[in-house]
Amino acid sequence: MAELSVVLTAISHPTRRAMIDRLSRGPAGFLELAKPFDTALNSVTKHLKMLERAGLIARQKHGREVIISLRAEPLKNVAGWVHHYERFWNEQLDEFEHHFKSTKRKEKKR
Amino acid sequence: MAELSVVLTAISHPTRRAMIDRLSRGPAGFLELAKPFDTALNSVTKHLKMLERAGLIARQKHGREVIISLRAEPLKNVAGWVHHYERFWNEQLDEFEHHFKSTKRKEKKR
Repeated sequence: MAELSVVLTAISHPTRRAMIDRLSRGPAGFLELAKPFDTALNSVTKHLKMLERAGLIARQKHGREVIISLRAEPLKNVAGWVHHYERFWNEQLDEFEHHFKSTKRKEKKR
Repeated sequence: MAELSVVLTAISHPTRRAMIDRLSRGPAGFLELAKPFDTALNSVTKHLKMLERAGLIARQKHGREVIISLRAEPLKNVAGWVHHYERFWNEQLDEFEHHFKSTKRKEKKR
C-alpha cells in the first residue's frame, strides 16, 4: 500500500482528480483518457505515473492497447485520516448552530 | 473557502499533518509547535504558510505571543471528495470477500 503522503500528492492536482473521476465511470485507453485534457501527452504520462505510484490505477494489456482502470482502495486511507478530524469541523458547526439558535431565541423575545 | 487542490497539497506533507495533529489537541505558540520537528524554523514558517493558505490554521495575538489554532472545516471538502469514491473501494472489498467466501466453501466441500 502506497504511503498516505504519496496518495495525497497524487490527488492534489485537479487533472489527476479528473482522471480518477473519468476512470470511476469505467476503464479507458491512454488516448481516450488523455482526450479531455488540454495538456501534452507527455504531461498525461507524468500524471498517470503519479497515480500509479499511489496505487490508484492499474494498467492491463488488451491486445495492442493498454487499458487503465481505477484502484480506489488507497483512498480509504485518506478517508481514515480525514475522519479523525470530523469532530473538529462538527464542533465548529455546533458552535455556529448554537450561536444561530440563541440569536433566533433572542429575536423571538423582542 | 480554499480550493480543494490547495487543501490537499497542504495535508500531503507528513510534517504538516503532524502539525494538524498537534493543534487538534489545542492551540500552540510558534516555538511550541516547531519543537518536535527536526527542521529549521524557516521551514516551519513555510509549512505554516501552506496550512494558512488552505484555511487550516488561524493565528491570534495574545499579548506578545502569536497563538496558532486549528480550523478543521476545509477538511470537510476532502471528506466529501473522497466519499464520492467509497463505493469503489467497497466494491473491491466485496469482490475480495466473495472470492474468500467461495474459496472457503470449496475447501469445506473437499
